[in-house]
Amino acid sequence: MSAPESSSPIGVFDSGIGGLTVARELMRQLPNESIIYFGDTARVPYGPKSPDTVRRYSHEIATFLLAQGVKAVVVACNTATAHALPMLREELPVPVVGVVEPGARAAVRASTNGEIGVIGTVGTVNSRAYHRAIHALAPHAHVRARACPLFVPLAEEGWTDHAATRLIAQEYLEPLVETHVDTLVLGCTHYPLLKPVIGEVVGRGVRLIDSAEETAAETGRLLAEREMCAEPGSIVRHRFVASDAPDHFLTMAERFLGAPVESMETVTLG
Amino acid sequence: MSAPESSSPIGVFDSGIGGLTVARELMRQLPNESIIYFGDTARVPYGPKSPDTVRRYSHEIATFLLAQGVKAVVVACNTATAHALPMLREELPVPVVGVVEPGARAAVRASTNGEIGVIGTVGTVNSRAYHRAIHALAPHAHVRARACPLFVPLAEEGWTDHAATRLIAQEYLEPLVETHVDTLVLGCTHYPLLKPVIGEVVGRGVRLIDSAEETAAETGRLLAEREMCAEPGSIVRHRFVASDAPDHFLTMAERFLGAPVESMETVTLG
Repeated sequence: MSAPESSSPIGVFDSGIGGLTVARELMRQLPNESIIYFGDTARVPYGPKSPDTVRRYSHEIATFLLAQGVKAVVVACNTATAHALPMLREELPVPVVGVVEPGARAAVRASTNGEIGVIGTVGTVNSRAYHRAIHALAPHAHVRARACPLFVPLAEEGWTDHAATRLIAQEYLEPLVETHVDTLVLGCTHYPLLKPVIGEVVGRGVRLIDSAEETAAETGRLLAEREMCAEPGSIVRHRFVASDAPDHFLTMAERFLGAPVESMETVTLG
Repeated sequence: MSAPESSSPIGVFDSGIGGLTVARELMRQLPNESIIYFGDTARVPYGPKSPDTVRRYSHEIATFLLAQGVKAVVVACNTATAHALPMLREELPVPVVGVVEPGARAAVRASTNGEIGVIGTVGTVNSRAYHRAIHALAPHAHVRARACPLFVPLAEEGWTDHAATRLIAQEYLEPLVETHVDTLVLGCTHYPLLKPVIGEVVGRGVRLIDSAEETAAETGRLLAEREMCAEPGSIVRHRFVASDAPDHFLTMAERFLGAPVESMETVTLG
């Protein structure tokens, strides 16, 4: 395996399809870069799994991505970021970007009253990863976290503008709004699809932080720092790999990427 | 490993916690029987996984249950029943009961107009397992199947009587009601928790078939036929085993069983 070059692809992985919102942002912000996306659809979701199991899976995927010659690894999964990021940074010879720090940093920058809301899966909220990342930057910030377990299946159903989605968003978010948060981190890669409904429910006074956007921006900065950006005019090739059920992946990918995926590969890990 | 006796436990498995509704019915209908429940929480959900993967997982779990000396195996998971039941019946030395046939049989018995609705996960609906089982008994029945992906997370959230749940149930079920089904099979082990809302939406003219109830009844019949029922006054002991995240399992188990689970074991498979 030769050392990665600036023309090498960026590896992106998630427990399933949610991380495609990060891939979409990478494509938008870094149009010269090629991407290899790995969705661990055979073992999704990671949220309810133990930290050790999530670390084992993350290690397997990172090993696969490295073997494909990636120049950086983006952990586009909040659970894997919460449990496996320090381990991956230690063991991988390429830069590793998680989804938690970029969102936390943007939230601290955006908040004027120090009341920051975070929404995510049960696993992400229980991991307190956003609490830690925000407090590392702003020790006096108040972090109000809330798990919104129905948002993922609503996003996957494509019910982004349904009356039920609005009711559910109200139930989840009104307690946060009442605590006067002025900034809300969408701490799950599925949630950008529900941004319009979430924005409507929390109102214009609350700034929404989209971790997918922030993570892509951070990846761009990191590559620029290391002079590893692909040249303008590079041949761009995106690959999509899933560990199971590629048909389901293809159906969802169009919803998440906003564009069709032409081909898929299936790779079994573990 | 000695041959199972009438005092041996019944093995029950599911991809996660949904099969606990079947375990609950077994406890209610067969109060002398001991149960070993295996929830494959490390690999849940099975729905989006390929048939081969589901068969491999089912084989591993059945092997584990047999090693515990079970006298019968109840496949309390629609996906595993759809993909793995014939294989398990061939390879196991004990009777194997699935969740599809008992529900299909009860539906055919209940329907007077031959218009039968089936609701389940995407995986169960796409497998057409209920179509096949119903048509094997009633070749002229019309089967109208509909996937209801939000019902599982709603049941797990405990939102069994929420306005959003009612809206979602209306959206899913009204097209079925319009086709004049007179019988509706709850083809997912989570759905019995939503029976009141589902019943309200479809109206009193539609008979609901609860596969958990039917599967427990079928298990009782099968044991009686083979003279393998536990004696009245037997020492009853239930064991709950999960492949990961026992805390989450314990929280959910109370919701699904309607009673607390006192202890849990964790076993890693595969």
